[in-house]
Amino acid sequence: MSRFVGDPVIFTGNAHPQLARDVCAALNVNLGAANVFDFANGNTFVQFLENIRERDVFLVQPGAKPVNHHLVELLIMIDAARRASAGRITAVVPFFAYGRSDKKDQPRVPITARLFADLIQTAGADRMLTMDLHAGQIQGFFHIPTDELTGQRLLVDHFGAQGFDGVVVAPDLGSAKRARTAADRLHLPLAITEKRRSGNEDRAEVMQLIGEVAGRDVLIIDDEIDTAGTLVHVAELLRSEGAQRIYGAATHGVLSDPALERLAASPISRVAVTDTLPPRTEASMCSLEIVSIAPLIGEAIRRIHEGDSVGALFR
Amino acid sequence: MSRFVGDPVIFTGNAHPQLARDVCAALNVNLGAANVFDFANGNTFVQFLENIRERDVFLVQPGAKPVNHHLVELLIMIDAARRASAGRITAVVPFFAYGRSDKKDQPRVPITARLFADLIQTAGADRMLTMDLHAGQIQGFFHIPTDELTGQRLLVDHFGAQGFDGVVVAPDLGSAKRARTAADRLHLPLAITEKRRSGNEDRAEVMQLIGEVAGRDVLIIDDEIDTAGTLVHVAELLRSEGAQRIYGAATHGVLSDPALERLAASPISRVAVTDTLPPRTEASMCSLEIVSIAPLIGEAIRRIHEGDSVGALFR
Amino acid sequence: MSRFVGDPVIFTGNAHPQLARDVCAALNVNLGAANVFDFANGNTFVQFLENIRERDVFLVQPGAKPVNHHLVELLIMIDAARRASAGRITAVVPFFAYGRSDKKDQPRVPITARLFADLIQTAGADRMLTMDLHAGQIQGFFHIPTDELTGQRLLVDHFGAQGFDGVVVAPDLGSAKRARTAADRLHLPLAITEKRRSGNEDRAEVMQLIGEVAGRDVLIIDDEIDTAGTLVHVAELLRSEGAQRIYGAATHGVLSDPALERLAASPISRVAVTDTLPPRTEASMCSLEIVSIAPLIGEAIRRIHEGDSVGALFR
Amino acid sequence: MSRFVGDPVIFTGNAHPQLARDVCAALNVNLGAANVFDFANGNTFVQFLENIRERDVFLVQPGAKPVNHHLVELLIMIDAARRASAGRITAVVPFFAYGRSDKKDQPRVPITARLFADLIQTAGADRMLTMDLHAGQIQGFFHIPTDELTGQRLLVDHFGAQGFDGVVVAPDLGSAKRARTAADRLHLPLAITEKRRSGNEDRAEVMQLIGEVAGRDVLIIDDEIDTAGTLVHVAELLRSEGAQRIYGAATHGVLSDPALERLAASPISRVAVTDTLPPRTEASMCSLEIVSIAPLIGEAIRRIHEGDSVGALFR
Amino acid sequence: MSRFVGDPVIFTGNAHPQLARDVCAALNVNLGAANVFDFANGNTFVQFLENIRERDVFLVQPGAKPVNHHLVELLIMIDAARRASAGRITAVVPFFAYGRSDKKDQPRVPITARLFADLIQTAGADRMLTMDLHAGQIQGFFHIPTDELTGQRLLVDHFGAQGFDGVVVAPDLGSAKRARTAADRLHLPLAITEKRRSGNEDRAEVMQLIGEVAGRDVLIIDDEIDTAGTLVHVAELLRSEGAQRIYGAATHGVLSDPALERLAASPISRVAVTDTLPPRTEASMCSLEIVSIAPLIGEAIRRIHEGDSVGALFR
Amino acid sequence: MSRFVGDPVIFTGNAHPQLARDVCAALNVNLGAANVFDFANGNTFVQFLENIRERDVFLVQPGAKPVNHHLVELLIMIDAARRASAGRITAVVPFFAYGRSDKKDQPRVPITARLFADLIQTAGADRMLTMDLHAGQIQGFFHIPTDELTGQRLLVDHFGAQGFDGVVVAPDLGSAKRARTAADRLHLPLAITEKRRSGNEDRAEVMQLIGEVAGRDVLIIDDEIDTAGTLVHVAELLRSEGAQRIYGAATHGVLSDPALERLAASPISRVAVTDTLPPRTEASMCSLEIVSIAPLIGEAIRRIHEGDSVGALFR
Repeated sequence: MSRFVGDPVIFTGNAHPQLARDVCAALNVNLGAANVFDFANGNTFVQFLENIRERDVFLVQPGAKPVNHHLVELLIMIDAARRASAGRITAVVPFFAYGRSDKKDQPRVPITARLFADLIQTAGADRMLTMDLHAGQIQGFFHIPTDELTGQRLLVDHFGAQGFDGVVVAPDLGSAKRARTAADRLHLPLAITEKRRSGNEDRAEVMQLIGEVAGRDVLIIDDEIDTAGTLVHVAELLRSEGAQRIYGAATHGVLSDPALERLAASPISRVAVTDTLPPRTEASMCSLEIVSIAPLIGEAIRRIHEGDSVGALFR
Repeated sequence: MSRFVGDPVIFTGNAHPQLARDVCAALNVNLGAANVFDFANGNTFVQFLENIRERDVFLVQPGAKPVNHHLVELLIMIDAARRASAGRITAVVPFFAYGRSDKKDQPRVPITARLFADLIQTAGADRMLTMDLHAGQIQGFFHIPTDELTGQRLLVDHFGAQGFDGVVVAPDLGSAKRARTAADRLHLPLAITEKRRSGNEDRAEVMQLIGEVAGRDVLIIDDEIDTAGTLVHVAELLRSEGAQRIYGAATHGVLSDPALERLAASPISRVAVTDTLPPRTEASMCSLEIVSIAPLIGEAIRRIHEGDSVGALFR
Repeated sequence: MSRFVGDPVIFTGNAHPQLARDVCAALNVNLGAANVFDFANGNTFVQFLENIRERDVFLVQPGAKPVNHHLVELLIMIDAARRASAGRITAVVPFFAYGRSDKKDQPRVPITARLFADLIQTAGADRMLTMDLHAGQIQGFFHIPTDELTGQRLLVDHFGAQGFDGVVVAPDLGSAKRARTAADRLHLPLAITEKRRSGNEDRAEVMQLIGEVAGRDVLIIDDEIDTAGTLVHVAELLRSEGAQRIYGAATHGVLSDPALERLAASPISRVAVTDTLPPRTEASMCSLEIVSIAPLIGEAIRRIHEGDSVGALFR
Repeated sequence: MSRFVGDPVIFTGNAHPQLARDVCAALNVNLGAANVFDFANGNTFVQFLENIRERDVFLVQPGAKPVNHHLVELLIMIDAARRASAGRITAVVPFFAYGRSDKKDQPRVPITARLFADLIQTAGADRMLTMDLHAGQIQGFFHIPTDELTGQRLLVDHFGAQGFDGVVVAPDLGSAKRARTAADRLHLPLAITEKRRSGNEDRAEVMQLIGEVAGRDVLIIDDEIDTAGTLVHVAELLRSEGAQRIYGAATHGVLSDPALERLAASPISRVAVTDTLPPRTEASMCSLEIVSIAPLIGEAIRRIHEGDSVGALFR
Repeated sequence: MSRFVGDPVIFTGNAHPQLARDVCAALNVNLGAANVFDFANGNTFVQFLENIRERDVFLVQPGAKPVNHHLVELLIMIDAARRASAGRITAVVPFFAYGRSDKKDQPRVPITARLFADLIQTAGADRMLTMDLHAGQIQGFFHIPTDELTGQRLLVDHFGAQGFDGVVVAPDLGSAKRARTAADRLHLPLAITEKRRSGNEDRAEVMQLIGEVAGRDVLIIDDEIDTAGTLVHVAELLRSEGAQRIYGAATHGVLSDPALERLAASPISRVAVTDTLPPRTEASMCSLEIVSIAPLIGEAIRRIHEGDSVGALFR
Repeated sequence: MSRFVGDPVIFTGNAHPQLARDVCAALNVNLGAANVFDFANGNTFVQFLENIRERDVFLVQPGAKPVNHHLVELLIMIDAARRASAGRITAVVPFFAYGRSDKKDQPRVPITARLFADLIQTAGADRMLTMDLHAGQIQGFFHIPTDELTGQRLLVDHFGAQGFDGVVVAPDLGSAKRARTAADRLHLPLAITEKRRSGNEDRAEVMQLIGEVAGRDVLIIDDEIDTAGTLVHVAELLRSEGAQRIYGAATHGVLSDPALERLAASPISRVAVTDTLPPRTEASMCSLEIVSIAPLIGEAIRRIHEGDSVGALFR
């Protein structure tokens, strides 16, 4: 029994409409009808084409490129939904961009992740639903209730179902905890590679391997693959340390250039990401597998709507 | 005597760096050093490269295309400046995009102009400096003090200096007041053309001419030229009514496609806009003249900084 | 099915109790019992005399004279309703005073319409219900959801039902769009008179007529009639241009002195306004007809309460 | 040395212009030039006629009748000053109306004193300067810094200078502390009369005298005289208990009808109030003496402006 | 019928778990399961052990010693409940500490009662439920709806049931109104003792008795007993004035040292307080009787949950 | 040149008065006079004993035990300073407690670090000055400008000055980056030990050593030492791996029981912490050395006051 009138209503911006459609399919509801487009002058227009008064509204919009544009689209949709008297507005942002801009590690820089949390609240969102934040602290940037799902299990189970029984590898110190959870789930050993990453930039430099991989298959697991520089360096180190088949997995397939080229030229045989971001069409060149989060998002929406525990999804 | 330490400090985003440089030249100060760029993943990075504690900071960023991207750049710059302990932050937005999204003229649409006012305040701006808002009411969307300059006088004086002594034409009812002010300044008669514009879209339909233009030169004056559809229809009507040389003028040269093609093919012989937006490089094809607002913006910044009256600029 | 307990509860301040009673009659509910009066020292006292916890509360109070006093009464009622644990509070303000103070058209003036929007929200209103705002942008002064109804159709249908088939006249450029909608609804031609109004003051000066009225009956239609200066000047122009019977209509009958005297002495034979404001008792002297908005307000309240589309009222 | 540009600037609304002029005289500055008046439609217009950017602005407006109207005038002045870029805005409200509406002593009533504190802050005031609040807790209704002066010393010294050496009388339990402070200052004994006052209403009922007054002159001292019902009942009791000459004093001379008639018919020979409110012109009928607070307000403004201790005024 | 899912859910911090258990017993619901404890480093940890999404949550935590610690525990519980998506959060604070810090009676002191009201709202509480505030104005420190119950009736009825028919005594001027209500309820006479209390300190000094107590039993009634200095001085005065048996009663038994020693050595034969605060175990030494407020709190929670009038509890 | 009147004014709560005195000594100013104590009822009282209008106020109060109590003391001091018209208020919190409660790593827990950031802002602080936050993201929990200093250099230089030239050890993955910075500063090698820590609790479990320590002196460096469980386990591992002399260092010496016992019984020969927290008097038992941060805090205050770069302190 929900406090709101009727079923949840789900709308999508232009960041990733396919995901919204898949979520609706999982929930067996229709995608809400709306116009979200740009005029010739570059101004974004939004109009909901059905009554949403007192309804429980979910706006699906991950931080896909162009990042700033899609974030603004989301803000405008929230404004329109609030002014249209929505009963409750949940921003569904499976990939929250700017996760790495979460602290002042240099003088006179912004904390853009906090800024966007504030903007989303100013626009009028009542709740957040997101996935695998770059740092758990980002939840604390929000004052509104925020549910954070994880795609890591889906990826782990994906490889588990394919019979993977090698070594799980954390590509840097920051992802060690996440990788250990994955290794534990698969009852497999963990190895860690330590690298240095300088500041906010994309250069990465592998240093050393902690653990044994010689003669084993390996699965490098992380929260996101951006330019794939780190991932490919780690893979090369693992190969040189005697690893057999090398796989990669990450929740968020950002895959900024030249990620696809790098992956295609790397010793990695397969990479799996989820569809928190729209798959790049050229992705076939590097054996990219997509694991869908739509059923998970759908179930979370159902639980939020009905007041069931979302944390129970992880037990 | 200012309440803040030292001279005003002026920074620019990527929307229109030339304008910021020209403003600095007018004020005889150096443009503040800052990095404002995008990473490969599309995330915007901002860093001020000089100490701005307790300083009176001005961030120059009009709503140039890509509109949403540049607005976010501005918000991130404001966040960085606030966290860097700026004494006061003024958002200098000579062209405020989304001016036409200022009311709910259809069900379930946003009021994006108000939304952006709120976002700019949430990010931490203390003041606004803008120019020729689409509707005066948009000032009321801001809670912070807002100074609105006008570029219309500059344009009027531009044509006056060239000896224009024909008829000033308002291209629609909404711009009649503005055009009358121009006509009065030039001591010339006014004519009005009435058109219908349907909703938020760009189609325009000229209806009728109020006033006499036969055998006279005419100057059509407006706040902005977007796709130039209206302007060209008005010009055609004026030509058919016997007007001689036809000129156009507007503060904001948005010039969305196919504005330049339309203007080139129209009976308009010359168009003047200001540089609230960066000039399009192909603009020479339609005899576009640019009148600079940089000295005006510079003088306004000086007055804001020193506590002098800005309204006195218009007396 | 509403999210709130029971039927909507409607209370009235002292601005226009008859309207609240008529709205209740239209909804077939009793007017909520409350004390709203002034002590000898001029302080306003408010007490709701029935339990309103969790109820959907509507407070009816247009900006009737004395304007500031009635606005404060509304704010105090909102405060009392919030502290009495109302489930939701909707301010029903059919005439929103200060609509003309919506921009800074002179230096160092307030934007009082925005100020009152903020005050109403500070006091604790969750929604607004209003009618024919002076400018659509005023909706953007509110952050809370705002429904704006129109009384223009009621007026147009009032004259239509009486067989009017002359010319609809817009008394100035600003009201041309509104008048055209009226003309379209009646399938009748439109004429426009253009006047100059200086600043915030009541002096008006008719300039010229656009369109044909000779030998036709005319209906001058506007959003409000204040001192009736404009209306009477327009009527005189129309008469001099050969109009036959002259009628006037406006949603808001502000009728500040000397409106009634002016109308009585004018060539206007009949004027119709709605009851967004309490009718002046001396109004019979100028053949003033009152069209009631109570059924419309009542229907809007029902739809807000039950989550039905309010925009659908206008389709 | 002030943090703000130039001298303090003082403006007045229409509640009590003479007080503002007297304050300016005490400070030896000119009263700021402003228009504050109502249009025929009852809407209040405000315009400051001199530049106030970065200035330290003081707006003088006690809660004189019509109370709600004058409070709104103040709010609109604050809005105009904020939008005109005042450096700091202090609301100078020597008599804060609604002081008795400071708690919920009945179900479903407002707490109007808190509401007005919020409204003043929403409008944009940075500080409050007030005098003898009905309850000290009202300072806690404000989040902004608030200085509360007292007029009681001025009154006490007024009678002391005239050689009063009788008994100081507190007219009810709530004013006993205030009266004791007065008695201590004059080194004279205290008596208390206890009355019941039912709810928010003006009926008062004297009960009994605590202390000795027979054969002594008496000075009844309170924070305000509203309808004078209490004061006159106390005076009659004191007369019946053998008091000789009977005087009354209060900071705020609200004097709602029928206060003057009551006082004229009472055994009270003289009443002194301050000019926190404009004196009623008919006040001579009851031997009303006015003690000016203007020098005190002026000195407080000087200290606020220069950062000197205001509390030191009372040491 | 409630707007929220299921029954109210009640949790307790460590200030007074027995009260929460008693309230649950009165409502016939289970106490909500939660961990609220301190780590070795003194940091408080909170975790709710059952799903509270969309539930109507009540957090029971009076301001028991250590006061600041328990207030922070409450704030942290509110934060956790908000982030856990509670439907509504009511802070149940039967004794609101810092009630005496409700005004600036000295220069440069805080108004801590207002501060805590703000903190509770910042943390995310939607409502307050409290009891016998030190001053009614403290309700005005809250913007959220606040229900204030009274324990005075329970105490009065406690003595009434025991056949008390002497004189009710107000121990100072500030408590006279409260005592009179008690006397009226018992149809018994009232006496008042007047004392001076200097500032925020605990020293008290009895002055005089107003009324007759010789040969009568007396009941001294107040809102709280802190160090019992006042109460004992009053009792000694009453004894010297010929009172027979002397009883004391107060809603809040703060009983700071040396209250129990003082009471044990005083002429007071019995003292009754409620359990808004946890009883001190050594309390038997001074014949302390505890009257439970749990049924009253329970009934108030039921009414808040179901939207019934809480004020009706007092009619 | 500062924007504020006079020198900075520094006050201390009871968390660590010696630090405040040392900071004042470093700045050559007197510690501000204030009363900050508890009444018998546990309520905290604050009064500033000197005028602070328009002054630049710094309130020194780290999160020493009892943590919640001292945090509330700080909030009350901020409230008092704001109401006393301080020009600017900086909360100087060298140790920010609750740094580990920075994310929701379990269902239905608070994010207390964010909560306290909000509380500090609600109370009225304008700026934060803190040191070595547990996670950099905590800066993003604040909206107000926040300067974060580091004590790590002081500690590193302390050991460097004593001729340390062994191996720097990071006691877990999370502190690896910090330790590397230390190693780089000393031009010495780095080793890492990896442990698991379960949730928010204090149990720690060492896993393995990455790097070489046999025959070398080692310096284990971290941000804080709480119960010292981790540190001692790491030390034991290092000893078993052949380390010679073992030293420990951390900015924050929380030293919760049984830290001192553990350290005394461990193979660690010396431990150095800073005085962000008051040294425990029994600390001599475990050879604890204290490095003072007072000169660093003092210099930061000077720079904040005068608008100089604080980041430049780290260049």
